[in-house]
Amino acid sequence: MPEMPEIDAGRVEEMILGLAAHGAHSGTGVWRTTYSPEWVAANALVADWGRAAGLSPRSDAVGNLWLRAEGREGGKAIVSGSHIDSQCPGGRYDGALGIIAALVAVEALIAHFGHPRRPVEVVSLCEEEGSRFPSAAFWGSRAITGRIAPEDLISVTDHEGRPIAEAMRDIGLDPERVAEARRDDLAAFIELHIEQGPVLEAADLPVAVVDAITSIRHRVVRLTGEANHAGAFPMRFRRDPMAGFAEIASGVIDHAHRLGAPAVTTIGQIAAEPNGAAIVPGAVTFTLDSRHPIQGEAEKMSSAQARLMEEVAARRGLGLSVETILDHHACTCDPALVEVLRSAATEADIPHIVMASGAAHDSQQIAGVCPVAMVFVRSAGGRSHTPEEFSSLDDIVAGIKVLAGGLYRMAWA
Amino acid sequence: MPEMPEIDAGRVEEMILGLAAHGAHSGTGVWRTTYSPEWVAANALVADWGRAAGLSPRSDAVGNLWLRAEGREGGKAIVSGSHIDSQCPGGRYDGALGIIAALVAVEALIAHFGHPRRPVEVVSLCEEEGSRFPSAAFWGSRAITGRIAPEDLISVTDHEGRPIAEAMRDIGLDPERVAEARRDDLAAFIELHIEQGPVLEAADLPVAVVDAITSIRHRVVRLTGEANHAGAFPMRFRRDPMAGFAEIASGVIDHAHRLGAPAVTTIGQIAAEPNGAAIVPGAVTFTLDSRHPIQGEAEKMSSAQARLMEEVAARRGLGLSVETILDHHACTCDPALVEVLRSAATEADIPHIVMASGAAHDSQQIAGVCPVAMVFVRSAGGRSHTPEEFSSLDDIVAGIKVLAGGLYRMAWA
Repeated sequence: MPEMPEIDAGRVEEMILGLAAHGAHSGTGVWRTTYSPEWVAANALVADWGRAAGLSPRSDAVGNLWLRAEGREGGKAIVSGSHIDSQCPGGRYDGALGIIAALVAVEALIAHFGHPRRPVEVVSLCEEEGSRFPSAAFWGSRAITGRIAPEDLISVTDHEGRPIAEAMRDIGLDPERVAEARRDDLAAFIELHIEQGPVLEAADLPVAVVDAITSIRHRVVRLTGEANHAGAFPMRFRRDPMAGFAEIASGVIDHAHRLGAPAVTTIGQIAAEPNGAAIVPGAVTFTLDSRHPIQGEAEKMSSAQARLMEEVAARRGLGLSVETILDHHACTCDPALVEVLRSAATEADIPHIVMASGAAHDSQQIAGVCPVAMVFVRSAGGRSHTPEEFSSLDDIVAGIKVLAGGLYRMAWA
Repeated sequence: MPEMPEIDAGRVEEMILGLAAHGAHSGTGVWRTTYSPEWVAANALVADWGRAAGLSPRSDAVGNLWLRAEGREGGKAIVSGSHIDSQCPGGRYDGALGIIAALVAVEALIAHFGHPRRPVEVVSLCEEEGSRFPSAAFWGSRAITGRIAPEDLISVTDHEGRPIAEAMRDIGLDPERVAEARRDDLAAFIELHIEQGPVLEAADLPVAVVDAITSIRHRVVRLTGEANHAGAFPMRFRRDPMAGFAEIASGVIDHAHRLGAPAVTTIGQIAAEPNGAAIVPGAVTFTLDSRHPIQGEAEKMSSAQARLMEEVAARRGLGLSVETILDHHACTCDPALVEVLRSAATEADIPHIVMASGAAHDSQQIAGVCPVAMVFVRSAGGRSHTPEEFSSLDDIVAGIKVLAGGLYRMAWA
């Protein structure tokens, strides 16, 4: 392997702050929702950076921004990037860092090695978070894989009820042409992203290569009993869904603890009805978020949870309804791509581990059209989706070196 | 004992329906909040009934309506009654039945035995439920015991933020004179009320004599951990207040089950923050309603709950704050009065039990100025605070007979 190009940390920092200026919020935060003026301005800045690096910018039908370097030998493109939209507010790194990393890596590789053998593209994806259009998470990457139905353009609305098609027209996109965003000419997608968890920090490592992206199943569970007077109803007469909930919550959380990483289970939302201090609840509704990066293991977890819920409800005389509202299947990263990234890290002398992602990513969608893999950069305190999110410049540069080494092997070598 | 007067079931039914017409709601329900036009009209009807029975009506400074029969020998008054305000909506029986029962009993006793030896009063109490003025529960009975502070008149507000003093002036009451509502000339208070629970129905009995009224302690408990990404945070890194809540909820509810009746514990209100399906909560706040009719036992329950909460919070690294927002002490009914009501029931051949009340009642307040006891009438399905609340006319007549027998022994014999 030849010597890899240096990565200019000062330039990386400048780009992070430059992008964060569009939608700057709460000091170190960013509030940049899809198709907003801040979002348009941020993509314009990315396009300028791309042109300066010798890449040709192109917006597709949903507003994904592609920056392309043609390859001497043609063929399918090697792509890297991430999403440019943020949480409300989010931090400077979630998504944005993957675009900057790809740009910096590709620019450095072109400067060092000249134009690539195969086409290389940097992509700024739109609406990963669903922070403006809640049901449109992964809108950009879904468009690339042809997973947007014509009716989505009307049924997907923002928090004010405005259809996404109108918001697209406002910035000059033609919703009629969404199908044209589909790509069948991608050879590989590598996404650099902050970890958003505490694993790298606990292991004292700057980066990880991601070999799988978790499945996510969200279920809404409703337990119904009988609302009663909290004083006049002795315990033995009650059918108390809160008592059933407590048993189920302990059960499913303990189950995930016993399985150990990477299994996780979370109860994040709960509501009691009528929610009065002196009333035994008539119903308790809660969400059950359950994840495992191996689909078979995820199915086993789901089944065990369902058996527990059915047993508790039956024993306590409670009604039980379970609705699955989200079901992302686990995504195995391409073993060859994972190997390429690992050797790049080893050669660059960057200590790393291979781990699964517990969060969903655009890569999971794009895996529908080409092999994918990811690079994680350590998150301070494992924090994300907050202005406090932070990754050190040293860790970021380490991540970009792994990415650059991988892109070199795929498109230049 | 002489033969007791007959109770005219038809007349009782007529009165129940007559009173329920003021604030009629949802078919069989009543929506009659304190100082509302319906409330004024209902009290006017009660005053009319009182006059027709030969009693002298008088409204006190907070709007409690007193109907008095002077006693041949004078002395302190024997009083019976209950509250005339309802939940929003409540049923036809909670409160109202105690006023009707007292009127019917006193009217029958006067008709049968002539004027009493000691003064007898029927009382229609105001704002027991706190359904219009949430912090004014037991407003009427608190006035009788002198437990209303001058500042309460301004700080106690309705759901629109209007001070109770203004609502009093609207119907011609003078808030400046609240202290005059205090009574120090009461010899005994007997309240007939629906059970609001399932105990009599399960025992297949029409009535109970109440020998104690529960303590009630409401605590607001807040567990704080760390809000984290539901996917990126492995279980072992979490400080999850929902997991702590589940363990505490199971623990305190199971504890009440193990203690058995009359101990009860309820978790009726809960909120998670930020309450997102894919976010490990940063905080869980819930109410803990804990009751026992023996104060010492109630204190033991509270201590055991506190120990559990502290142990769970410490072990899980969670913050814990506990605020007591309501603390009604247990009330032991006067043993002599309980005995009087039991012999009245036995003599009238009415099968009954002696039990504690798990709900709070005006009697608990009035115990501050005179001996109290209560008569419970069976509730269908144990239901109350709903238009579906129901007690049969047979059970109601049985309850009135017990009350009349008691009043006879106290004021006529």
